[in-house]
Amino acid sequence: MVEVKFEQISPADFFYRNRDIAGFSSPARSIYMSIRELVENSLDACEVGRILPEISVELSSEGEVGNSGTEIYRLVVRDNGIGVDGDYIPKAFGTVLYGSKYGFKQSRGTFGVGGTMALLYGQITTNRSFRVTSSKGGSKIYEYEMMIDIVANTPRIIDKKAHENKKGWRGTVIDFSLEADYSTSKSKIIEYLKMTALINPHANISFIDPKGRFYFFRRVTDKVPEPPKEAKPHPQGVDAETLSRIASDTKARTILRMIIDEFQRVGEKTALEILKMAGIDAETKPSELTHEQIAALVNAMRNYQGYRAPETGSLSPVGAEFLAAGVKALLKPEFYHIVQRPPASYSGIPFIVEVAVAWGGGIEPSEEIHLSRFANKIPLLYDERADVSWKVVSEKIDWAAYKVPKMAPLSVITSICSPKVPYKTVGKEAVADRPEIERELTLAIRECARHLRNYLTKLEKREAAKKRLNIYAKYLPKIAKFSADLADLEPPNIKPLLKRMGVSDDMLEEAAKLEAEEAEQFSESPPS
Amino acid sequence: MVEVKFEQISPADFFYRNRDIAGFSSPARSIYMSIRELVENSLDACEVGRILPEISVELSSEGEVGNSGTEIYRLVVRDNGIGVDGDYIPKAFGTVLYGSKYGFKQSRGTFGVGGTMALLYGQITTNRSFRVTSSKGGSKIYEYEMMIDIVANTPRIIDKKAHENKKGWRGTVIDFSLEADYSTSKSKIIEYLKMTALINPHANISFIDPKGRFYFFRRVTDKVPEPPKEAKPHPQGVDAETLSRIASDTKARTILRMIIDEFQRVGEKTALEILKMAGIDAETKPSELTHEQIAALVNAMRNYQGYRAPETGSLSPVGAEFLAAGVKALLKPEFYHIVQRPPASYSGIPFIVEVAVAWGGGIEPSEEIHLSRFANKIPLLYDERADVSWKVVSEKIDWAAYKVPKMAPLSVITSICSPKVPYKTVGKEAVADRPEIERELTLAIRECARHLRNYLTKLEKREAAKKRLNIYAKYLPKIAKFSADLADLEPPNIKPLLKRMGVSDDMLEEAAKLEAEEAEQFSESPPS
Repeated sequence: MVEVKFEQISPADFFYRNRDIAGFSSPARSIYMSIRELVENSLDACEVGRILPEISVELSSEGEVGNSGTEIYRLVVRDNGIGVDGDYIPKAFGTVLYGSKYGFKQSRGTFGVGGTMALLYGQITTNRSFRVTSSKGGSKIYEYEMMIDIVANTPRIIDKKAHENKKGWRGTVIDFSLEADYSTSKSKIIEYLKMTALINPHANISFIDPKGRFYFFRRVTDKVPEPPKEAKPHPQGVDAETLSRIASDTKARTILRMIIDEFQRVGEKTALEILKMAGIDAETKPSELTHEQIAALVNAMRNYQGYRAPETGSLSPVGAEFLAAGVKALLKPEFYHIVQRPPASYSGIPFIVEVAVAWGGGIEPSEEIHLSRFANKIPLLYDERADVSWKVVSEKIDWAAYKVPKMAPLSVITSICSPKVPYKTVGKEAVADRPEIERELTLAIRECARHLRNYLTKLEKREAAKKRLNIYAKYLPKIAKFSADLADLEPPNIKPLLKRMGVSDDMLEEAAKLEAEEAEQFSESPPS
Repeated sequence: MVEVKFEQISPADFFYRNRDIAGFSSPARSIYMSIRELVENSLDACEVGRILPEISVELSSEGEVGNSGTEIYRLVVRDNGIGVDGDYIPKAFGTVLYGSKYGFKQSRGTFGVGGTMALLYGQITTNRSFRVTSSKGGSKIYEYEMMIDIVANTPRIIDKKAHENKKGWRGTVIDFSLEADYSTSKSKIIEYLKMTALINPHANISFIDPKGRFYFFRRVTDKVPEPPKEAKPHPQGVDAETLSRIASDTKARTILRMIIDEFQRVGEKTALEILKMAGIDAETKPSELTHEQIAALVNAMRNYQGYRAPETGSLSPVGAEFLAAGVKALLKPEFYHIVQRPPASYSGIPFIVEVAVAWGGGIEPSEEIHLSRFANKIPLLYDERADVSWKVVSEKIDWAAYKVPKMAPLSVITSICSPKVPYKTVGKEAVADRPEIERELTLAIRECARHLRNYLTKLEKREAAKKRLNIYAKYLPKIAKFSADLADLEPPNIKPLLKRMGVSDDMLEEAAKLEAEEAEQFSESPPS
């Protein structure tokens, strides 16, 4: 008999062993991921406090070689967000799967993995501790020097200080070393910061790179976006697990009250109908629901048909105005169209899809359609081909049907916002092809494409008309002159006639000029 | 001041909230993932015991609708693997991140997530318990009915039986319900089983689908492959975390002994040189190493240059013979070439890349190159475009330089084996682009491509020669006849001359036949 040993590992150990799945697969990608995760934490920490973000990223060389043979860098990310309570700092930054309780609310961070993963990666590659300094603006600034006990998934505090906060500073500073390949990842990092600034136009973001180059993305609006609200779950998306948790946490004394209070879009009438469908007495205590009753209730809640669509207060889409500003600044297209779909939902989780399709101008013609993706206001730059947007743009839409030639100056920008974006990877780079999201994207892109087709048709017609009128402009004066010569008359004034046909003076001048040029070319050619 | 609540979640809760990252993103994909994870567990359970696998998969409709509105199915997977000890069954199948301790050894499963995730998905979508029956072949068969407590990440045992094992049965049976979309995923499931059978030619795999259709993939060899051995870590790939764990677990009394005993490829001379580089006394007790000494030792071990390459006993590549058999059976190509690269390593972890490039025959010409990917003998069917193999095949290799036209009947098969394949996702579908793996793949594919070019060049030359000889075959007899007619002689026998030039009787006949056809066409055309 073969004996197999079993073991249980902690979440930190899991990510230590499998860092590739969090996006930390190479020294180049890891520095990109680290900056990204920390900047997104900073943006969230500002958003929740309705603060105009001031985020600075500083990367400098330590002049040493790390574990895998590339350079060691020091990364410092500072923000003016709401800060973290001194008591929470160690767990918040030294424990994997520990994070702020987002609940059912749109936010950039979702996993309780990203920020800690960056610090964990730094520790693995440099064997050094990291430093977190934070204040909520009160009388103290807390500074911790820590490492992560990977086996136990707990912080190990090396040093701890509480400074007087005389100037009332508020924010968080993360300061750590990591092995990185900056030269390979530079362009992605700059693109990431540029796109982040574009979609968060209320943020000041600065970056000092290891060569001392200073990049500054200045805010273009002082308007702080409405922070997404936390919403109650929609009954259609509930499963037994969620329902059991709600039943054991609720303050409601009856199941009827619980359904009304803990879910959105449910009034007494609806609740009673659902309970009838499930065969459960309305006065039942939530804590006394049996396993079978929970199963029956889930089925009833899912199959009830009379709900209104999910509330969308928990959603904070980019908005057509911001998206248009971004498209214009980024692409300078000659045509664009933006579609914001109405809120939809997958498994009871609401989401909004926004799409822009842009054409010409600053967009280089290419056989591959340029695709820019955003999710909850973060740009997604890697793993494009694993993303549902790529699938729709490249496989589902027949662009030829919209008069788009193979080589086209075409750009598609997609944005998805949701309290739960179904990412395919912990590194948050590709959105899964949930059928409902795929459908909304397809509808939005098709609608944009129809507008594009109209534009291209108009362009075509205009070109054809111009060509026709050019012919009039060129030959009608000649015919008039020739006929007049034949009849030995003065040539008539045909300008009013031409004008009525749509030939402008400009076109006439153009035609005359072209003819003169042609005549000149002809006269220059050697006699045959 | 804004208050943010913090929370810590269990690994089970993490995957419950984010099941997309484990590949369970839709009812179609989830049934594929469930079958895959359980079949791979079964193959591992056979391999470790050197057992010829008998694996059966049975999917039947329960005739009900699940939480997300698609059908509920019952999935039963049976194997004759080594079985699981009764005491371990609950944790092994009811806890996420709990699994057999693979250590540093090649295996299909790696995360302690997959199998449990399938059961978790079933529980979430159907609210039902699952059943695990197993025996190691001893006197008892254990049968558990369980659910998973997601918040606590622990099994909840509903029922538990121990049956007499009169017939000495050994193996494991997993039996559970899940919501699925079989019609959409059918082709992927069949392809998965077919490819799995191909790369595991010693396994019998059967599948009964919900319509009662029976698929049987019969073993083609009784040879059980050598199971991969567990290897000690190579010193070049060590980091502080691993070294600390070894130092606290080792039985060695001195650091010198520890380095020799716990790592591969280290003798006393090498160990002493490393310790000298690190400035550590050879007699130091492992348990008394300071944090600084561990950091210094890691640096010395990484930077020491005199190692031999990593041991490869822990690797079990497919092998050129098996790969050739697979390529022939699957593609029936007119040409193929196989390259097995010598073992290489990334971060001290050994791996072997094998590549086959095939041309023509049963391969449909296409603008996109057909790519089949394997990793540790499992087929990877999803997320192709996020995989390092795709990157190399589509972006790094300039196929035109190898005479491959845009539309080509070209197929590339890649296989990577390693005690740790750097998957990008928990769903194990795409391999990350670690630079070392990318390099090996590039070298292997280039070498295959050079052979392909030679083949295509030969083909070209043969075509050109045939064309030339066809001209001789067509005109020489005419010239001979014409000259003879002029001189009023009998035409000479020019066959020996033609033969010496390489023109065969067949070609002469062909030429004569073509000419006759042309003459006929001419005579059929209407007189002008």
